Amino acid sequence: MFIEAPRPTPSPEPEKINGNFKGQDILSMDRFDTYSLDVLFDVTKDMREIAVNAEPCDILKGKQAVLLFYEPSSRTRGSFDAAMKQLGGQTIVVEDPQHFSSVAKGETFEDTIRTFEAYSDLIVLRHPITGSLQKAADIATRVPVINAGDGGQGEHPTQALLDLYTIKEQHGRLDNLTGVIAGDLLFGRTVKSLIRGLSLYPGNTLHLLSPDELRLPRKDFEEFVRRGVRMIEISDPKDIPSNASFWYWTRIQKERRVKNGLTVIRNLAKMFGIKQDMKNPFIVDKKLLDELGGVNTILMHPLPRVGEILEEVDEDPRAVYLKSQIRNGMYVRMALLGLVLGKIDKD
Amino acid sequence: MFIEAPRPTPSPEPEKINGNFKGQDILSMDRFDTYSLDVLFDVTKDMREIAVNAEPCDILKGKQAVLLFYEPSSRTRGSFDAAMKQLGGQTIVVEDPQHFSSVAKGETFEDTIRTFEAYSDLIVLRHPITGSLQKAADIATRVPVINAGDGGQGEHPTQALLDLYTIKEQHGRLDNLTGVIAGDLLFGRTVKSLIRGLSLYPGNTLHLLSPDELRLPRKDFEEFVRRGVRMIEISDPKDIPSNASFWYWTRIQKERRVKNGLTVIRNLAKMFGIKQDMKNPFIVDKKLLDELGGVNTILMHPLPRVGEILEEVDEDPRAVYLKSQIRNGMYVRMALLGLVLGKIDKD
Amino acid sequence: MFIEAPRPTPSPEPEKINGNFKGQDILSMDRFDTYSLDVLFDVTKDMREIAVNAEPCDILKGKQAVLLFYEPSSRTRGSFDAAMKQLGGQTIVVEDPQHFSSVAKGETFEDTIRTFEAYSDLIVLRHPITGSLQKAADIATRVPVINAGDGGQGEHPTQALLDLYTIKEQHGRLDNLTGVIAGDLLFGRTVKSLIRGLSLYPGNTLHLLSPDELRLPRKDFEEFVRRGVRMIEISDPKDIPSNASFWYWTRIQKERRVKNGLTVIRNLAKMFGIKQDMKNPFIVDKKLLDELGGVNTILMHPLPRVGEILEEVDEDPRAVYLKSQIRNGMYVRMALLGLVLGKIDKD
Repeated sequence: MFIEAPRPTPSPEPEKINGNFKGQDILSMDRFDTYSLDVLFDVTKDMREIAVNAEPCDILKGKQAVLLFYEPSSRTRGSFDAAMKQLGGQTIVVEDPQHFSSVAKGETFEDTIRTFEAYSDLIVLRHPITGSLQKAADIATRVPVINAGDGGQGEHPTQALLDLYTIKEQHGRLDNLTGVIAGDLLFGRTVKSLIRGLSLYPGNTLHLLSPDELRLPRKDFEEFVRRGVRMIEISDPKDIPSNASFWYWTRIQKERRVKNGLTVIRNLAKMFGIKQDMKNPFIVDKKLLDELGGVNTILMHPLPRVGEILEEVDEDPRAVYLKSQIRNGMYVRMALLGLVLGKIDKD
Repeated sequence: MFIEAPRPTPSPEPEKINGNFKGQDILSMDRFDTYSLDVLFDVTKDMREIAVNAEPCDILKGKQAVLLFYEPSSRTRGSFDAAMKQLGGQTIVVEDPQHFSSVAKGETFEDTIRTFEAYSDLIVLRHPITGSLQKAADIATRVPVINAGDGGQGEHPTQALLDLYTIKEQHGRLDNLTGVIAGDLLFGRTVKSLIRGLSLYPGNTLHLLSPDELRLPRKDFEEFVRRGVRMIEISDPKDIPSNASFWYWTRIQKERRVKNGLTVIRNLAKMFGIKQDMKNPFIVDKKLLDELGGVNTILMHPLPRVGEILEEVDEDPRAVYLKSQIRNGMYVRMALLGLVLGKIDKD
Repeated sequence: MFIEAPRPTPSPEPEKINGNFKGQDILSMDRFDTYSLDVLFDVTKDMREIAVNAEPCDILKGKQAVLLFYEPSSRTRGSFDAAMKQLGGQTIVVEDPQHFSSVAKGETFEDTIRTFEAYSDLIVLRHPITGSLQKAADIATRVPVINAGDGGQGEHPTQALLDLYTIKEQHGRLDNLTGVIAGDLLFGRTVKSLIRGLSLYPGNTLHLLSPDELRLPRKDFEEFVRRGVRMIEISDPKDIPSNASFWYWTRIQKERRVKNGLTVIRNLAKMFGIKQDMKNPFIVDKKLLDELGGVNTILMHPLPRVGEILEEVDEDPRAVYLKSQIRNGMYVRMALLGLVLGKIDKD
């Protein structure tokens, strides 16, 4: 087992998108400014209409996206696949290329990226090794690259974008919110991308509920505080503030999938002395939500869940993880694809 | 090895489709009435024209079907995939989701279905555990679900529909027919769906030719008799009635595929004391077809065949298993997709 | 390990395409005459415009191609997939059918081909056993079959077509060229298809640089000489002629992929006493290219490369393996699909 290089710390001042999505690589939340999020989320509303009406749409007709997934992901791949086709575009799906002849024959990652760049107008990439996304974007200069998951410690920005959209859809704003983020804050990459996004807005307070061994890494904690987020670590659901704007629950990532020797951390549980059978000890049931949730509190989860939210909660109108959250993922990706491919104008 | 629950016996009076396909789940032949079959088969004729001319068609433009196959099936998946695209629709293909991260991470079947429901206008599902189709339809209330194979004992209605269409195409009717059904009547699910369909029409007589250990289960036998089908079990090809309307041959399902611990019957042969190497002992060769088949007898097979029909028979004009039967499968699925998605009107 | 039958020697006078592509099977370079190559390459130029502008195109709207790959190939499958969709067509992708139920249940190759013929307007097939392509074409008489790789000793004509197009694009002609072909000439199938194509034109001289144990088989060598190609075997890069028209570098195929017992040669290295770790001993670095390459020499490679061309060479304008060669593959396949499906006229 080799230890992967630590995530390259983002340059203090990464260039912002500033609403000019066309041709941009979408690798990190750090590229986003509030104006770009306004643009994206306005377009997302229009995308919602297109999808809901399921009317024929030719916005991306003639455009092709390669969905290159070194780690299969039914959820994320399916969402990008559907988003592209909703807009009349096409996809070339390549899953597990490390099984395919070229890579199996010893082709470098660089040459594989160059090949699929040649076939497409855009690459959506998931890779188990953190940093691969930046590498791919540096190589594929002819087409934009969208990050669909960048290893164990990297980002998964479209998840954060759909989470932010879901919060804004409910509360009409992304500032001055009080949120609860629970579960695996040590390894959960969606959590970090979400906080990074919220850190763009003033007055946000986050209550971090996790077992001691799964606290947010200090480095990240301090970075977010520096960015102006008020962060409060709690250890007991009793300390959940009443009437929070949202609860963001996550499962405990006991391990990163091991595949073709590519994945870098065999077993987080073992490495960090977490009990093999450890699940998120903080379970949301009807009782907890009714006691501590407010009328406007939305209950979110990036999915998949493995028991940390009981099914009895699914029907509660505040539970959005199965309802709007999944659909919003497709709408946000539609908007992103349309903007990055230059077929949707920001105005 | 766990034994799956017996197939839930259908309610004695299941609600019929009555020609109103739009938005309907297509899980069982029991939903079909003769009027609905007339509607479906009329539309199927039109679909045939579209496919034969291979002219561009936008009937399902803007519609997306998720093809969710827990058991890969090149034949059935390809047929639905082609049917959807022939009509200008799109597909999101998800094979073996149990290998994919979400399910592998412990996501429930219910959450997986909810996810793909969110991405699509329709779900085509195959699952190795009987009863999963009903479960999926109960969850996915926003989109129709079409059964592409429901475990070892469940139904595979679109196979029965294409079989019925093929018979009607040849004989112009589905009543007062004399048929021969041979091979594995114990486990062959297509056989049961076909008989269920024929039981909607009066005056049909079926001669069931199988080894004793592979007879139709009594429960099914009695149910079909109660529905008015005349059923005659025979043990020797010599007893095949001359000039039958159709011969429906099947292979012996020595085992259900075992995959990811999902499949429920490890080895039918072992369980039922069938010789491992047992093949359908009733082989159709030119001699048998010429001796006992009539000039209008069509020879059918759901495929794949593994030797129970010799290749020397393929060129006989009465052999339709490779010719019209496969194509009809695509036409019938085109008609079903168009009707269920509300894009083809029954009139 | 069974030894596959030797490649059936092509009939001395195979019927030429003569520019009439519509409905033709494309199995071998032997079908091509110079007029057909002129037609194909003229159309390819137009295809290039369509792809570069990424404008919506409906030339193949309503057409479906089954991409049936018994050996997965991210590169070739992706190229055909993209080519079909660039022209508005659709694909049914079937990879590793031997894993799929029907084939796993014992279905014959013949029945599998008949099934996919029924779903499509065209079949693109790759199979690990040489000769399977001809077999498929003999069965699938209703639709054209395109060879995407025919076992270890068979042809891969579309690779040769893109190679020829790339050479013509640079030099404006395919006759009176001086080329260097280096690496694995014993097993490399792309090399043989390329030489076969060049043998259609007068005045071509090829310098064959390879280790002694990987020389072009005598049988092929003599056939090509008989066809009028001047062939010179060299053993040392020093003997590379200055200012050659092209260098065509290849990797050493140490083994054919072994899959499902289908592949026929377990390990070429072992069989032929080649060192396991043997790579192409003739490495192209900047120094070699600058010393022996001319200003108009293009450096080609069918890819994947495994070190025989150093990355330092990639930026050299003469290095076309990553730049035009991959894209040209998609353009040539677009042209071929459009012509064979009768949707692009040769005039």
